[in-house]
Amino acid sequence: MTAMSYPANRPDRTRPTDTAAGIETTEAFERFAQRNDVFTRAMWDPQVRSKQTDAFFASYRMEAAPRRGDGFTQRDFALRNAAWLISDVVTNRFAAEGRREGFQAPISYDTPVAPQQVGVDDPAAMSAEIKRIARFFGADLCGVTELDERWHYTARVDTRDMSEAPLGLPDGLTSVIVLGHEMERDLVATYPSALAGAATGREYSHEAAVVMQLATYIRNLGYEAVASMNDTGLVIPYAVKAGLGEYARNQMVITPEFGPRLRFSKVFTNLPLAHDVPRPRGVRAFCDICTACADACPVKALPYGPPSDVAPNVSAIRGVRKWTSDAEKCFGFWAKLASDCAICMRVCPFNRDYARRRNRLWLRLALSPLRHLALRLARGHGKRRKPAEWWAGT
Amino acid sequence: MTAMSYPANRPDRTRPTDTAAGIETTEAFERFAQRNDVFTRAMWDPQVRSKQTDAFFASYRMEAAPRRGDGFTQRDFALRNAAWLISDVVTNRFAAEGRREGFQAPISYDTPVAPQQVGVDDPAAMSAEIKRIARFFGADLCGVTELDERWHYTARVDTRDMSEAPLGLPDGLTSVIVLGHEMERDLVATYPSALAGAATGREYSHEAAVVMQLATYIRNLGYEAVASMNDTGLVIPYAVKAGLGEYARNQMVITPEFGPRLRFSKVFTNLPLAHDVPRPRGVRAFCDICTACADACPVKALPYGPPSDVAPNVSAIRGVRKWTSDAEKCFGFWAKLASDCAICMRVCPFNRDYARRRNRLWLRLALSPLRHLALRLARGHGKRRKPAEWWAGT
Repeated sequence: MTAMSYPANRPDRTRPTDTAAGIETTEAFERFAQRNDVFTRAMWDPQVRSKQTDAFFASYRMEAAPRRGDGFTQRDFALRNAAWLISDVVTNRFAAEGRREGFQAPISYDTPVAPQQVGVDDPAAMSAEIKRIARFFGADLCGVTELDERWHYTARVDTRDMSEAPLGLPDGLTSVIVLGHEMERDLVATYPSALAGAATGREYSHEAAVVMQLATYIRNLGYEAVASMNDTGLVIPYAVKAGLGEYARNQMVITPEFGPRLRFSKVFTNLPLAHDVPRPRGVRAFCDICTACADACPVKALPYGPPSDVAPNVSAIRGVRKWTSDAEKCFGFWAKLASDCAICMRVCPFNRDYARRRNRLWLRLALSPLRHLALRLARGHGKRRKPAEWWAGT
Repeated sequence: MTAMSYPANRPDRTRPTDTAAGIETTEAFERFAQRNDVFTRAMWDPQVRSKQTDAFFASYRMEAAPRRGDGFTQRDFALRNAAWLISDVVTNRFAAEGRREGFQAPISYDTPVAPQQVGVDDPAAMSAEIKRIARFFGADLCGVTELDERWHYTARVDTRDMSEAPLGLPDGLTSVIVLGHEMERDLVATYPSALAGAATGREYSHEAAVVMQLATYIRNLGYEAVASMNDTGLVIPYAVKAGLGEYARNQMVITPEFGPRLRFSKVFTNLPLAHDVPRPRGVRAFCDICTACADACPVKALPYGPPSDVAPNVSAIRGVRKWTSDAEKCFGFWAKLASDCAICMRVCPFNRDYARRRNRLWLRLALSPLRHLALRLARGHGKRRKPAEWWAGT
């Protein structure tokens, strides 16, 4: 199967704010087809799919194989899978129609767009309102940026037969609201473990609820609003463009509030909104000298050296110069564990509790020309905590 | 239609911890039939149902009639209805089968009980674990008490035809986990308004997620666990028995952490758990001298004087000596507003921010023999804030 042809597949290659966001596309740029996402490939591509990957997915559906190892007992899987529940409920609602919503399709409207449109005289004030409502519903971060088709998939997959289907976004959308959801620090500290997956699952459940509520709010004001999790497009360039953080070697967005310890979700809308601007602070320069994540990766799926536009396999977007992981190696490790892994989040020097003054001071150092000193101070940072300690509450 | 006959309708009339909990039943005690709940009556009883009550329910489904009044604009209804969304999604999942889950039926199992049961040597440790997991999922309070059929409905209603149906709880349940969910103070301060209903809706959405996740966790451990919101039985006596707070004149449970500004939900289970004990602190004596809620009620639905076992109408449980509201008057006011009302929560002298030392001091005074002084100090407490101020964030 080939990707859709130009121009649908090759929208304007650059935008004025790309440089500030640290985004660099090349002549080879192509929009990404969802079917090549490694999770989606695990549903159809014999190169990725295996008994292990099937068992990985089954383990989330009461078919875990608990073992004696600390972090992989019945209780650990129980918490992880319970944490995912609300996300699962949302994802399964229209599965019979081929839409695993939140992952392989955007979330359907539960309520229509109100016939009466609330007037918006001041898009900046409306952006401020939306950020407040996002926090009211439980988002930890919120930024707004312009819609940019480069980051949208060329097609989604119909999960009944894995054929390609249109994304199904309404016409005329202009903005993307990007939401950040903090993952629990003490659980992330236990990666790799099934227990740690509870941090991931809980935030997927949170984000499902928050984007659905926020989108419903906007539709009640008389505007289109599509709630989106991992579906429809790449959230990372949107999060960076919306000023929430910077892209790092570990494939994550580093934020001043939580470092990389976040999940992101989004709402596509035509509500008139003022846009945030990218705010580079110096993460790129720090990642240039730090390889903590690449060193710690058990399967060496993370890149060394400078950003490049080499895609290790079809599961990476083409024509973007960036640090790119080998998603096949990464997901292969998840399948072996029967749980997700985020060692690269745990060991990241930016993964800290920024409520503490000393960590805020470290951050200033890391983003300054004294970054080498900050790197030295971060030696041994992010050691694994024993899952049993989390359970003991110590 | 008559209630089910003795003994199903009249379980043991008292329990040893009743006195500590301030619960007093009389010879006239009868379990409550859900069909007599005023919200359920609004679906079938011409004495309650009216054009206004139909419009009240419709207003939550994109059919609000916004007006110019502060707190009742399109934006106010939008936030309220968006806040309810997750609760609505849960409630509607099996509506076609006559179960409005979370309100007229308990929440169906999304995952089965695991075949392998985790051993529980120490029910006290398991209670501590459950409380921690409840908080992990977002509950603000958690207590555990014994199952007590007195508070269960004699029957639920099948919402297709409003006939009575069995509650459908599995056999052998022993405990009830009671969860408390704090409502936002600044929104509650704007009651009555459609905006304030966002505080209620958000917590219903929270509680739906939390009880479903907690119950899923317990089932993953190999035990029965039924997630429950307003369905199946009365949560107030359970909350009091679980030591979370005391019953007050305004029909609410007053907690030391949030005063009356809470919603409660519950999980029924056979997981071996140690039980909490009621912790009376002196709210009863304060309510004896305070009538702030009854004075403020626009339709005089709240009682003056001491607790009594007089039921104003069929929407009150019979044979329990307590402060009992006139639910018909109360709900009639909601219907007129096209929004819920909780003025009685707003004006309650216990409705305070207990993060503040001066409010903690006031609480000590209110629960001491100096309660008359505390009451005088609370004069003018709980004035309505303008909804426009909430929107302005001031």
